[in-house]
Amino acid sequence: MNKGLKRLLIGRPLKNEEIQGEKFGVLWGLPILSSDAISSVAYAGQEILLVLLPIAGFLAFKYMAYISLAIIVLLGILTLSYRQTIDCYPNGGGAYVVAKENIGLIAGVTAGSSLCISYILTVAVSIASGVQQIVSAFPVLKPYTSYLCVLVIILMTLGNLRGIKESAKLFSLPTYFFIFSILLMLVVGVIKIFAGYKPEPLVLDESSFQPVTLFLILSAFTNGCAALTGVEAVSNSVPNFKAPSTKNAKAVLALLSTLVLIVFGGTSIIVNYYPINPEKGAMLVQIAQMIFGRNIFFYTITVLSFAILVLAANTAYFGFPNLISVMAREGYVPRQLSMRGDRLSFSNGIISLSAIAALLILIFNANVTRLIGLYAIGVFISFTLSQAGMFFRWIKNKGDNWVVKAAINGFGAFVTFVIVIVIAITKFTMGAWIVVIVIPVMIFLMLKVKTHYMALHKQLKISPEELKDVSIPRDVYTNRVIVPIASINRASIRALRYARTISDNVVAFNVSIDEEQGKKVREKYNMLDTDIPLIVKYSPFRRVVEPLLMFIESAEYDYQKGDIITVILPQFVVKRWWNNALHNHTRAIIERQLIRHKHIVICTMPLQMKDDDRVLKSHKYK
Amino acid sequence: MNKGLKRLLIGRPLKNEEIQGEKFGVLWGLPILSSDAISSVAYAGQEILLVLLPIAGFLAFKYMAYISLAIIVLLGILTLSYRQTIDCYPNGGGAYVVAKENIGLIAGVTAGSSLCISYILTVAVSIASGVQQIVSAFPVLKPYTSYLCVLVIILMTLGNLRGIKESAKLFSLPTYFFIFSILLMLVVGVIKIFAGYKPEPLVLDESSFQPVTLFLILSAFTNGCAALTGVEAVSNSVPNFKAPSTKNAKAVLALLSTLVLIVFGGTSIIVNYYPINPEKGAMLVQIAQMIFGRNIFFYTITVLSFAILVLAANTAYFGFPNLISVMAREGYVPRQLSMRGDRLSFSNGIISLSAIAALLILIFNANVTRLIGLYAIGVFISFTLSQAGMFFRWIKNKGDNWVVKAAINGFGAFVTFVIVIVIAITKFTMGAWIVVIVIPVMIFLMLKVKTHYMALHKQLKISPEELKDVSIPRDVYTNRVIVPIASINRASIRALRYARTISDNVVAFNVSIDEEQGKKVREKYNMLDTDIPLIVKYSPFRRVVEPLLMFIESAEYDYQKGDIITVILPQFVVKRWWNNALHNHTRAIIERQLIRHKHIVICTMPLQMKDDDRVLKSHKYK
Repeated sequence: MNKGLKRLLIGRPLKNEEIQGEKFGVLWGLPILSSDAISSVAYAGQEILLVLLPIAGFLAFKYMAYISLAIIVLLGILTLSYRQTIDCYPNGGGAYVVAKENIGLIAGVTAGSSLCISYILTVAVSIASGVQQIVSAFPVLKPYTSYLCVLVIILMTLGNLRGIKESAKLFSLPTYFFIFSILLMLVVGVIKIFAGYKPEPLVLDESSFQPVTLFLILSAFTNGCAALTGVEAVSNSVPNFKAPSTKNAKAVLALLSTLVLIVFGGTSIIVNYYPINPEKGAMLVQIAQMIFGRNIFFYTITVLSFAILVLAANTAYFGFPNLISVMAREGYVPRQLSMRGDRLSFSNGIISLSAIAALLILIFNANVTRLIGLYAIGVFISFTLSQAGMFFRWIKNKGDNWVVKAAINGFGAFVTFVIVIVIAITKFTMGAWIVVIVIPVMIFLMLKVKTHYMALHKQLKISPEELKDVSIPRDVYTNRVIVPIASINRASIRALRYARTISDNVVAFNVSIDEEQGKKVREKYNMLDTDIPLIVKYSPFRRVVEPLLMFIESAEYDYQKGDIITVILPQFVVKRWWNNALHNHTRAIIERQLIRHKHIVICTMPLQMKDDDRVLKSHKYK
Repeated sequence: MNKGLKRLLIGRPLKNEEIQGEKFGVLWGLPILSSDAISSVAYAGQEILLVLLPIAGFLAFKYMAYISLAIIVLLGILTLSYRQTIDCYPNGGGAYVVAKENIGLIAGVTAGSSLCISYILTVAVSIASGVQQIVSAFPVLKPYTSYLCVLVIILMTLGNLRGIKESAKLFSLPTYFFIFSILLMLVVGVIKIFAGYKPEPLVLDESSFQPVTLFLILSAFTNGCAALTGVEAVSNSVPNFKAPSTKNAKAVLALLSTLVLIVFGGTSIIVNYYPINPEKGAMLVQIAQMIFGRNIFFYTITVLSFAILVLAANTAYFGFPNLISVMAREGYVPRQLSMRGDRLSFSNGIISLSAIAALLILIFNANVTRLIGLYAIGVFISFTLSQAGMFFRWIKNKGDNWVVKAAINGFGAFVTFVIVIVIAITKFTMGAWIVVIVIPVMIFLMLKVKTHYMALHKQLKISPEELKDVSIPRDVYTNRVIVPIASINRASIRALRYARTISDNVVAFNVSIDEEQGKKVREKYNMLDTDIPLIVKYSPFRRVVEPLLMFIESAEYDYQKGDIITVILPQFVVKRWWNNALHNHTRAIIERQLIRHKHIVICTMPLQMKDDDRVLKSHKYK
C-alpha cells in the first residue's frame, strides 16, 4: 500500500512502550468486552422466536420467556466458573491455554480451533444481525444487505488496524447509550402496558401449527445460547486490563452478567406484551416501533442496535489475533502470524479474520438464521474444555476451598458439554456439520505445523557445548563465482567487477540459442581487458539453468565437494511499477531452480534504472 | 506443474533442429490454414439470415444469395492481393510486418493490435459456433453451452502446447471429411430438389416485417464478412511451409479460395430450397436434417462442422503466438513472450490467447451473434493496412508489372477500407465500439513498452570503442558484508562462514524487539570463536530493514561512497510445498526493501531442510 495512504487510514506506527498506554480499565473494558453478550439481545431472542412461532403460534412468546430464563441461569453458572479462571490466569486464560496446561495438547489445540471458528462467527453473525437492524428500519436497503455487511467489515478492519485504544474509545460510547436506551424502552413499554396499550393483533399462518416437540424447544434453546458468547472474552483479555487487572476483569465480568440479565431477560418478557413477527424484520426494531412509534427514539434504538452489534464483532478483533499470536509463538500456526503490525495490532490476524467472516457472509447471504447454526457449537466446545481444564487444575493443585471451586468448574463443564451434544444434534443439518468437519482438519494442520517447526529447530540448533567449538575460519569454503551473461553491457560488466572482488575464481557463462549468437558474444567479450574466462554453451532446449548445472558438474569445471558456487544475477530496479512486468522473469526462474542446490549461493545485484523519459529526451522508434 | 504430468499432457521437449521437421506442405497446410475461411460456412450465412429474416421474411434467402456473391467477389480480390504479399514476403508477410515496413511504425502497430484482437475472436467465435452446432443437434446440452466452449478451449490449449506438427495431423483430417461431406450434402440436396422435394413451410412472425433498408443489408453483409478471416493466415505462415514455401503457400491460398467459393456459395444457394429458421439452431445442422433426415449422415455433418470450427480456432493458435513473438523480438510487447516453450510452441502466447478467448465467451454467454459484432472490424483493419502497405511498396520499389500489381493491392486496400467504415457504423453499438477503444489503448501500451526497452538499452549498452577501455580490476569495489542474524544457529553460522570467505570486512547484525532478547543473542554470540563484530540494535517499531539501513548510514559503520555492501540472507529450502507457507516471509520482505538501494547486493544462501518425519523419528509435542 502507498505509505501516505496507509498512514492516513491506520495512523502512525506505535513503539513497543506504547502498549502499556493501550490498556483499559473497567470503564472502557466493560463496553469493549460486554458488547458481544449484551448485543445478543438483538438476535438471540429473535432466533428463538423464528423457530417457535411458525409451529407453536402465540404460545411461542411464553416458551421464549422460559428458554431465556434457562439461558440466564446458564450465564450465572458460566460467570462463577470464569471468575475462577480470571483469578488463576492473570496473563490471560483463554480456553486454549487452560485446556492445554491442565488437560493436554490435543485438548488445547481443539479449544484453539473451536475458538478460532467462534471468533470468525462472532464477526459474521454480529455484522449480519447489525445490518439486519438497519434494513428492518429502512427496507429500501434490503437488496444490498450482503454488500453493506462487507462494507462494515472493511471499515472495522481499518479501525482495528489503527490499534487497541483508539478503536476502544471510538467504538465504546454507543454501548452505554445502547444499554440506557434499551432500559428506557423497557420502562416506557411497562408504562404503556399499565396505561392499557393493546397491540395490533399478530396474524399468523395457523396451517403450519404443530405440537411442540422437545427437539423444537432444544433447537430454540441452542439459538438462544448464542447470547452467551461474550463471557470468555473477559478471561482472555485479563492482561489488557490496567492494574489491578484481575480485579478489574472480575468487575467487568460481574457487570456484564448483570447487564445481560436485565437487557436480555427484560426484552424476553416484554415481547409477550408487544408480540412481533420475527420474519418481518429485527425484533428490537419492531418492539421499538410499537413502544415509541416511528420517531427519533425509534431511529436511535435502530442505530444503537447496529452500533453495539458492530462493537460485538469488534470483541473478536481483540480475541482472535491474540489467540493466533499465542498459538503462533508456540508454533501451532505459521510464525509470521505472531508478528505485531505497525500499530501494535496483530495485523495478519485482523485481516484473516475479516476476510473469512466476509466470505461466510457472502456464502450465507447475510442470513442470521443460517449463520447461527454454525455459531454456538464452537463456543460451547471451548467453554467445556476451558472449565474441564480448571476442574483438573483444582484436583491437581488443590489450595483453599478447592473442592467447592472444582465443583463449580466441574458443573459448568458438565452443563456446557451437554449443550455441545444438544447443539450437535439439533443443528447438525443446519451448518453444525461444517464445524464438526473443520475442527479435526484444523487440529491436524496445527499438529503438522508444529511438527515442522520442531524438525526445523532440531536441524538448526547448536547446543551451548557445541557452540564453544564453533569457529568462523577464513577458508572453510572455497568460493567460486559464476556470472551468467546474456550480452556484454553495463550490467554484466558491473557483475563481473563485483565477482572479482569476492573471489579469484570467476567464470563468465553464456547460454546461446544458436552458434552465431554465441560467437558474437565471445567477440565482444574478447575486447574486454580481463583474465576471467568466458564459457559459451549452446542450449538446444532454449533453457538456461540446465546448461549451467551441467557445466558445474562437468570435468571442465572441476567442482570439488564442499566448494560454494556463487551465481551473480543482475536485477533491474525500475522506476514505475508496470515496468516490472517487463523484467526479471528470467532471473526469477533461474533463482527458483538454482536455490534447490545447496552448494549454490545466489547474489542478486540490483541495477537502478533511470526514468524512461529522462533517458530518452528525444528519440525515434525503430 | 508436476513434471511427469506436463510430459504426459504436452509431450517431450523438442530441440531447435526439430523445428524444420515441424513444417508442412500443401497437403497438411491446406486443412490447417483453410479451416478458418471454410468453417465460416457454419456461421456467416446463419448470421446474415439472423439479421434479414425477421425483417424481410422469405425474401431474406434471396438477399442472402446476393450478399454471399458479393463476399465471394471480395474473396477473389483478397486472394489476388495476398498472392502478391506471399511473393514479396517469403519469411512471413503478416499485416504487422508489411504495414510497418512500407507505411510506418504506427500503421504497423495498429495492424498488430487489430490482428491480436481478430485472432482472439477467431477462437471465441469459432468455438462458440462449433458448440452451437452440437447443441443444435442435441438440445439437452444447451444449458451447458458456455462450459462446453471453455472445455474445448482447454483441450485445444493442451493440444497446441504439444507443438505444431502433431496438432496438425491430429486435427487435419476432419477438414477434408468436412469438405467432402458438405459437397455430398449439396449434391443430395440438388437431387432431392429435382425429385420434387417440398420442405415443411417455414412459419415466420410477419408482424415484425419491415421495409428492407440499406443499413440492414450492410449489417447482414458485414456479418458475412466474417467468412473472409482465414485469408491472411496463409501469408503469415509462409515460413511454416516446406520448401518451396512461396509456391506451396500460393497453392494453398488458391485452393482455399476455391473451396470457400464452392462450400459457402453452395450452401447460400441451396438454403433457398431448404429454408431454415436461424433462431432455432445452427443453419448447417438444420439443412442437413432436411436433406438427410436424422440419420448417420446428419450426425456426421454435425460432428464435422464442430470439428472444422475447432480447426478454425486452431488457425489462431499458429498466427497469434507467431505475431506476438515477432513483436516481442522488436520490443513492442514484453520480451518474455518471444521465448519458445518446451515444445517449440510459443507457450505464453498460446495460454494468453486461450484465456482471453474463454473470458470473452463467458462474458458474451457464447452468443455468436454478439461475438461477431466485435470480430470483423479487426480483421478488415489489418487487411486494409496490409494491402495499403503493399501498394506503397510497389510505388517505391517498382519492378516488373508494378503498375498492375499496385492497382491490385490498391484496389484491395480501398475496398477493405470502405468495409471497415461500414462495419464501424453498422456494428458500433453491437460491440465494435469495444474494439474501437481497445485498439488505441493497445497502440499506446505497445509504444510505452518500446520506449522502456529503448531507454533500458541506452543505459546498458557499451559501444565497441568504449569496450576496449573496460577492465575488470580486482579492487574496483570495496566489498563489505553484513549478516543479519535472528539467533545463533546452524544457518547463521553457515552465513557467517560464507561471509568470511568473500570479505575481510564482515559484521553480524541483530535486531531485537527488546533489550533482553538482544542480550541473550550477544551472550551466545560471544561463545563463538570469531573476530566478526556483532552489532545489536533495538527496534522500537518491530521493523528489521530500517535499523539496518540506519546502521549503514551511521558514522559507526563509516560507509564510503562506492563501497558495495553484501547482505547475506539464509533461505530455507523445504521438502514439501506447503512448508513454504511457513518460511521465508521475513526474508522476502527484507529483500524487496533492500533491493531498492543500489550499493546493496543481496546474497540468498539456500539451506536445505530435511523431511520432517526423517528428522523427528519419534517425538513429543511441547
